[in-house]
Amino acid sequence: MAQVVADRRDVDFVLHEQLKVENLSHYEQFSDFNKKTVDMVVSEARNLAIKELLPLLKEGDEEGCTFNNGTVTVPKGFHKAYDLFREGGWIAMSDDPEWGGQGMPSTVALAANNYFNGSNYPFMLHIILAHGAGKLIEKFGTDKQKELFLKKMYSGEWGGSMLLTEPEAGSDVGALTTKAVKNSDGTYSITGNKIFISSGETDLVPNIIHPVLARIEGAPAGTAGISLFLVPKIWVNDDGTFGDVNDIVCTGIEEKMGIHGSPTCSMALGSKSICRGTLLGQENKGMSAMFVMMNEARLHVGMQGFSCASASYLNALNYARERIQGKSINAKDKNAPGVPIIQHPEVRRMLLTMKSYSEAMRSLLFYTGLMEDMVNISAKSEDKARYKGLIDVLIPVAKGYVTDRAFEMCSLGVEVFGGYGFTTEYPQEQLLRDCKITQIFEGTNGIQAMDLLGRKLGLNNGQSFMDLLDEVQKIIDSAREISSLKDFADRLEFNVERLKEVAQNLIEKIKSGDLSNAFSNAHPFLDVTGDTLMAWMLLWRAVVATEKLQNRPNNKDISFYEGQIKSTQFFINTVLPVSLGKMSVIMSGDTAVVDILEDSFGSR
Amino acid sequence: MAQVVADRRDVDFVLHEQLKVENLSHYEQFSDFNKKTVDMVVSEARNLAIKELLPLLKEGDEEGCTFNNGTVTVPKGFHKAYDLFREGGWIAMSDDPEWGGQGMPSTVALAANNYFNGSNYPFMLHIILAHGAGKLIEKFGTDKQKELFLKKMYSGEWGGSMLLTEPEAGSDVGALTTKAVKNSDGTYSITGNKIFISSGETDLVPNIIHPVLARIEGAPAGTAGISLFLVPKIWVNDDGTFGDVNDIVCTGIEEKMGIHGSPTCSMALGSKSICRGTLLGQENKGMSAMFVMMNEARLHVGMQGFSCASASYLNALNYARERIQGKSINAKDKNAPGVPIIQHPEVRRMLLTMKSYSEAMRSLLFYTGLMEDMVNISAKSEDKARYKGLIDVLIPVAKGYVTDRAFEMCSLGVEVFGGYGFTTEYPQEQLLRDCKITQIFEGTNGIQAMDLLGRKLGLNNGQSFMDLLDEVQKIIDSAREISSLKDFADRLEFNVERLKEVAQNLIEKIKSGDLSNAFSNAHPFLDVTGDTLMAWMLLWRAVVATEKLQNRPNNKDISFYEGQIKSTQFFINTVLPVSLGKMSVIMSGDTAVVDILEDSFGSR
Repeated sequence: MAQVVADRRDVDFVLHEQLKVENLSHYEQFSDFNKKTVDMVVSEARNLAIKELLPLLKEGDEEGCTFNNGTVTVPKGFHKAYDLFREGGWIAMSDDPEWGGQGMPSTVALAANNYFNGSNYPFMLHIILAHGAGKLIEKFGTDKQKELFLKKMYSGEWGGSMLLTEPEAGSDVGALTTKAVKNSDGTYSITGNKIFISSGETDLVPNIIHPVLARIEGAPAGTAGISLFLVPKIWVNDDGTFGDVNDIVCTGIEEKMGIHGSPTCSMALGSKSICRGTLLGQENKGMSAMFVMMNEARLHVGMQGFSCASASYLNALNYARERIQGKSINAKDKNAPGVPIIQHPEVRRMLLTMKSYSEAMRSLLFYTGLMEDMVNISAKSEDKARYKGLIDVLIPVAKGYVTDRAFEMCSLGVEVFGGYGFTTEYPQEQLLRDCKITQIFEGTNGIQAMDLLGRKLGLNNGQSFMDLLDEVQKIIDSAREISSLKDFADRLEFNVERLKEVAQNLIEKIKSGDLSNAFSNAHPFLDVTGDTLMAWMLLWRAVVATEKLQNRPNNKDISFYEGQIKSTQFFINTVLPVSLGKMSVIMSGDTAVVDILEDSFGSR
Repeated sequence: MAQVVADRRDVDFVLHEQLKVENLSHYEQFSDFNKKTVDMVVSEARNLAIKELLPLLKEGDEEGCTFNNGTVTVPKGFHKAYDLFREGGWIAMSDDPEWGGQGMPSTVALAANNYFNGSNYPFMLHIILAHGAGKLIEKFGTDKQKELFLKKMYSGEWGGSMLLTEPEAGSDVGALTTKAVKNSDGTYSITGNKIFISSGETDLVPNIIHPVLARIEGAPAGTAGISLFLVPKIWVNDDGTFGDVNDIVCTGIEEKMGIHGSPTCSMALGSKSICRGTLLGQENKGMSAMFVMMNEARLHVGMQGFSCASASYLNALNYARERIQGKSINAKDKNAPGVPIIQHPEVRRMLLTMKSYSEAMRSLLFYTGLMEDMVNISAKSEDKARYKGLIDVLIPVAKGYVTDRAFEMCSLGVEVFGGYGFTTEYPQEQLLRDCKITQIFEGTNGIQAMDLLGRKLGLNNGQSFMDLLDEVQKIIDSAREISSLKDFADRLEFNVERLKEVAQNLIEKIKSGDLSNAFSNAHPFLDVTGDTLMAWMLLWRAVVATEKLQNRPNNKDISFYEGQIKSTQFFINTVLPVSLGKMSVIMSGDTAVVDILEDSFGSR
């Protein structure tokens, strides 16, 4: 059967040949995860994804979620899939076995998630939200909170969500007005309204545990006065029995462009009676708690966008191999027969664009997962800090850059199908619609760009950004040892050096106080950083592939490895020169974006 | 009221200040169209668009078209709008009054179409298809065919469609298999199946006249054996009375991503009884007849895509002026109040991107209309040929480049709204969905790119392409006379010179027989040609605006003219350098796209 979600050969290549994930099994924490086990996990995830989740993709889109008087009904087929997910223990793959997790390396969990999200990420949102809420409890909860909620959440018996956004507090979380008042029993009464809450209400589970951001009466304005609370849909008594139904209700779900299988809820807290919660973590430290979770959440969003793009690519590839249309451009006879469209240069250009980005994204995302694993297995605190720094720098790229490019790939994926791509007969148009929100939620990509420039570039006095470029340099150095890759290595090195100049230029602008100009270049800076990191991953792949080609691989592997080198050639020779143009634009510091008068944007 | 479809000030600027459309009224053919009349036409179009079409945009999307046993029902509200359209004589705006047209300059009709399409282009497809079918009859019909059909089509009493595509003949029209057999009475019996037929069936009109591409028995294979037929839904006798119902039936409509107000029909011809048609034009000359219509059809598609983008921009601008979120990046006080998001550099960058493309596209499309008018009023055949050549070169850009960029603008238009942009509460997500198909229909943008490189670049021995660059040079020369614009002029000239080298490089590749490499660069070549033409239009605008600023305009106009110069500055300083990067990529002639083995694209 053709690959339709993620190319298994490529997934294996990244796990075993590029990142050598089995090395993790030398550490006690991951000793169960030798190559055989990793392969089994990926195979099982792939089977579940393709057999159970993929057939529900269109069904979930068409059936959607329905709201009726406070209840939300998810697409019918989701119930069986959810049960299978629970039975397989797929919700808490890389979490602590003490709380029901599988203790899997993050890298491997990402490979599984590549299949799950590529098959049906609207379904996966139910899983991911519950897991993220559980993780907050694991990290910040009291023993009692963990005892009451955690296993039930990691097992999927109960669900979870995240209540951050309010109508007037979106990107500016600090503007939120939801209020918490302490009760005599230590609980808090919470009142307010939240919007855009994925899985805020669902009929998949009997209880939902909601982490809620709110401001305790009298707390400071802005982000410094925000606390995090745990608000169960149905109160859970200290002995684990159910108490009263809490007054946290869904007042409606959004009609939207895509992810119809995932309800986007408006939630009213304490509007009619009492909505009680318990403090999670410390007073006024809600934002920093959320930030601890942000990396994981954003990496997941990158994976969602990428998985759409990866599926769109494989669908396009399979279609281009089958669809006969037009004669070869080199045919001499005007009555020459039609050929599969993969033979047309324009289609090949689209496919190779999708292929190279898809491969580079997979490597970058799995690598970020590996860095999480390295944090976990490192003994020395300075090693942990270094890996942590790498992750912090990588996250805005893994979320922002990846989903920006993923949306463009999904758009190409429609075009390869021509008019058919616009119809619901093929998954391409849904993948495009579903992908769009990944650029927006968990912090818009504008926010990601500002995060990279404003926070991550200067993190640890700039050391983490330089550490990342050092990792890039290591690959450049090893590529330069291989004569067929020397030119690629030189070109990437040139880009890296130029990227350093660009970064320095922006840092100086920020230091000099010209924040407007610097931040008008935040998104372009994200773009060129991402381009460089994509090329790094591809060059790394080319190094591995070139080495493997020396060892007389079989014919199938020869095609695969040669394809790796072609992706690298394409990206370095055709994308990086454009990236240099973007860098020169940043360096030139044009001021039009900042200077233009508001009235000059257009008539009122 | 805020501008929501097209900025009237900008429409007027292009018509009167940039293109000086009233000069056309000095010619007898357009003597009725002085400035006052043009303004009246635009105002009436705008009123009709905003009052009647715009409110139906969402309704049409949600209600959609329904298919039932051969009949197609359009959204209810479309009937009234259609009647108003007919009453206003808006269907055949720039056509010959002899046949019921308004004899309007194409430039002015495009301005009206900017409002119509920006308000509801799925509705407009009903109009445009009928008009295009009529135009074919006007150009190629016998006197009898004109007498029977034309006035009824231009008045909207009857509808029309275009039956080209078949399941195995999409981009490769020459592969079609629909068959025509001559009857003893001179009519033809036609059998075959067509797909993707916009307005193939509708309840808006009692009769639909279908131009159909088919192959006469025994005709050559490929495009050389294709003829064009006129197939009425209900046969029309020579005296104008209705005859039998023809066996041309809609067998279903596509479920699709957008343009739900426009039915995309599968049509069966002669599957159960007789489907009769008459030859339109000459035997085996069907393709060249279609090509005559192609420029108009493709310009319309460019207008559709652009109009979505223009509306998306204005919605985003209005939202950004109202939506308060986050403090100013320059605020010293961490508790500073929130500001409208138009003050944030990242949002300004998105808006200025949308603004500059939107303005350049409007100028380019209206200019193409003006060239059509120049063909019509020119007395000398060499002048006509020159203007015709300019149009031929412009069309793939006006269709392909414009819709590619329009889709990207609509995507930014969603992002400016953040999470709200993904909901159906605002028009942004629909504009994005509706816009997508403009990149695909009337020849995919890959086909447009191949048309530019393969046909238009070498048209008239390359003279037409050079004529167009001469027009660009004229603006560069006049801009250089203005000291504040000299730098922009120099930069654009540098790009133009480089574009010539790129064109030469590709021409040489084609001559040397390396078609694969040349055409793997067709789309990048379309991109860089389009970038250059956008910059041309913006520099032209800046020249006009700078001159106008000398004449003590009022404050509102000062803002507008300064905004023109800012768009130019932004585009020339931040888009053109990236375009130079793209040109260097084409020149480098990388071969990865051509060389990669089919098996290397991925596992089967």
